[in-house]
Amino acid sequence: MPEYLPTTPVKGTRDFLPAEMSVRTQVFGHLYDVLELRGFLRYDGPILEPAEIYERKSGQEIADQQLYTLTTKGGERLALRPEMTPSVARMIAGNAKSLQFPVRWYSHPNCHRYERPQRGRVREHWQINADIFGSDSANAEIEIFELVHDMMGALGATPDMFQVRANDRNLLSSALTDIVGVTPEQLPQVFTLVDRWEKSDRTKLSDTAAEAGLTDKQFEKLTEVLAAGTALLDELPEQVKENSNLVKVLGSGAADLIKFDPMIVRGLAYYTSTVFEVFDTSPENRRALFGGGRYSDLASLFTSQQIPGIGFGMGDVTLIDFLDTHELTPKPRSEADVVVIPVVEELTGAAREVAGRLRKAGLRTSTPIELRKLGKELTRADKAGARAVVIVGQEDWDAGNVTVRSLATREQRTVTVDEAVSTVTSLL
Amino acid sequence: MPEYLPTTPVKGTRDFLPAEMSVRTQVFGHLYDVLELRGFLRYDGPILEPAEIYERKSGQEIADQQLYTLTTKGGERLALRPEMTPSVARMIAGNAKSLQFPVRWYSHPNCHRYERPQRGRVREHWQINADIFGSDSANAEIEIFELVHDMMGALGATPDMFQVRANDRNLLSSALTDIVGVTPEQLPQVFTLVDRWEKSDRTKLSDTAAEAGLTDKQFEKLTEVLAAGTALLDELPEQVKENSNLVKVLGSGAADLIKFDPMIVRGLAYYTSTVFEVFDTSPENRRALFGGGRYSDLASLFTSQQIPGIGFGMGDVTLIDFLDTHELTPKPRSEADVVVIPVVEELTGAAREVAGRLRKAGLRTSTPIELRKLGKELTRADKAGARAVVIVGQEDWDAGNVTVRSLATREQRTVTVDEAVSTVTSLL
Repeated sequence: MPEYLPTTPVKGTRDFLPAEMSVRTQVFGHLYDVLELRGFLRYDGPILEPAEIYERKSGQEIADQQLYTLTTKGGERLALRPEMTPSVARMIAGNAKSLQFPVRWYSHPNCHRYERPQRGRVREHWQINADIFGSDSANAEIEIFELVHDMMGALGATPDMFQVRANDRNLLSSALTDIVGVTPEQLPQVFTLVDRWEKSDRTKLSDTAAEAGLTDKQFEKLTEVLAAGTALLDELPEQVKENSNLVKVLGSGAADLIKFDPMIVRGLAYYTSTVFEVFDTSPENRRALFGGGRYSDLASLFTSQQIPGIGFGMGDVTLIDFLDTHELTPKPRSEADVVVIPVVEELTGAAREVAGRLRKAGLRTSTPIELRKLGKELTRADKAGARAVVIVGQEDWDAGNVTVRSLATREQRTVTVDEAVSTVTSLL
Repeated sequence: MPEYLPTTPVKGTRDFLPAEMSVRTQVFGHLYDVLELRGFLRYDGPILEPAEIYERKSGQEIADQQLYTLTTKGGERLALRPEMTPSVARMIAGNAKSLQFPVRWYSHPNCHRYERPQRGRVREHWQINADIFGSDSANAEIEIFELVHDMMGALGATPDMFQVRANDRNLLSSALTDIVGVTPEQLPQVFTLVDRWEKSDRTKLSDTAAEAGLTDKQFEKLTEVLAAGTALLDELPEQVKENSNLVKVLGSGAADLIKFDPMIVRGLAYYTSTVFEVFDTSPENRRALFGGGRYSDLASLFTSQQIPGIGFGMGDVTLIDFLDTHELTPKPRSEADVVVIPVVEELTGAAREVAGRLRKAGLRTSTPIELRKLGKELTRADKAGARAVVIVGQEDWDAGNVTVRSLATREQRTVTVDEAVSTVTSLL
């Protein structure tokens, strides 16, 4: 007896059967629409990139543990992209001369990270990556925050369901040094501590703070700073605030798009000022749905030209968890609107002809490949989600007619072939 | 000075900048429409699969030379899919109990093969994969051939631009054994010879035939058989023809969808009867655009259940070459329909408000992120492909007005904010 291979997908990856794929397609279709309405242009790049670009730029955790690497027969050491940003930085750098900056670009890559699979985390996920390149202006921040709201809105989310929590790393640095008294050497460790703040318990945080060299009093002060919200801004030097795009956003008509939160820092190494994360307001879902930020110098691996950018990656796993939580997940699309059923095999060609007319009118139409008894075909059409069938019988056909039947009301009518399209349409 | 990394994509892969991506998106969008209209359901699977499934099923060339493999930290030996069929066979086998066979499925994967890059061949390409599973009926063949014609038609191709050349490997086997006198042992070698027939010169073919043990007379006979076209059918045993779906198609109303051609065999190991290739009729483009066929037992790696299928993969590279040759390639989409320009920075919020209204009406609308002088913004809007701009000036805005300007005619009008949408629409 032969030994069969497993039919499950490789650990941490997913099959998308038609029902799941239809959900994914609809969700991302709504997001494409919003992006296109705002003038974002879609691009794409290869899944394989030189491993080096991630090892140099994506932070230690990705480079050391999460990268899928391979060496080709030609000796190139490549990696499956764990994120899109280095690829798009490469493309922007390579085409900088012909681009009209600032540009708005988006893509829909799948990304691979070798992580322990768990709720919200898989090894291959799909994401929307949206960025603005070539501008230092706070208008870029506003555009990105508006985009986030429009995207969430297009998925049916109302403003009470999510919150955009934003920070500026430079504001936090200033607060940490000027108010908490953190030294420049301690800063990286304290940033990591802040990043874990909401995921760890107080004892653990306090221990980690002590390891970083903070006194108990400094730890208390840090706790206050992180909880201060907008009031923290009053305590920061004017000069620091003047340089902050986030402060500009908070002073603009777009302020209500975000909530200032000193606790947001994000893990990825390359963010330089604005950072944000979008949270589900439902207590069932504590993790950030997605996030992003501003990087002043991402293209520096590829060019001496400084190209600032701001953007985010929005992954399908946490997003669909969010939609499920709020009962916003779209229903899978049916297989067809209408099925054309020949009563006998000899009428298959006739059924195909009728199906062709229905399709020309934009109706999603299928015909049986293996013909069963009419009753069985009606059941199959119903299971396929069709709302009507067209039955092609010999006598009808000889007289130039077909029978149109609604699967909802079981009402049926014999009409001429020419009338079939309008009759079906009236039933849908 | 730092050493910069190359900005070109990894050899054999491609970046899709927005202009190229827009072409790809439009082309595949048309193909999705056709597939959905015919009741094909889209699915997707992981890029990484166990290397074993290709090594066992995809033919020697792929397994030995073209596979990108890697070993994860967990010790799994994986491969980047070189084709979609083994993945879909795995999914079909794993879900056979819950599926209503026959099923029509399609996907849009990217596939990786380590080949020498050349015209029509890259190392990462995108394809449409369409299959019908669970039917032995010739109606499945007809459905697939109709689908091919509809897909080509949706891209603007007229029937004179391409030809579907189809064969049945069993008919050819019969002709080779019964007419040419090929022994069962010689068959595989002769199939390979036939596959190369159009790509090699006559001396080379004759030498290869001699190596396979064919006499000069047999080689002459083989040449006749391959050139015979439909006339060959008269010389084949009735029993063989009765078992051939292709012969059924040729005897049906769908016969004109294909041209019978004994020379078509296709390389992939798993085809068992019907095979076809779609050719450009233009002499500039001699290679097959794409092709497919019927496999009786593809799921056998995963299940004892026999699940026949028929399908094809249609790759983006040869397809876009075809469209270019016939001047059918769609134009890249513009960045936006309309740009809303505030005359001064202080009116940015007002411009965003107007832009929001235009987007609600379905108009693709952008606003400047970094404001330049009005003349420059008009030039930028023109370059971005916009057909109109809305200018927001202080006095106008204070009076509840904006100025709408056509970029084609330079005609402009001052209207109320409420009238802006209809005025812009009338200009597009």
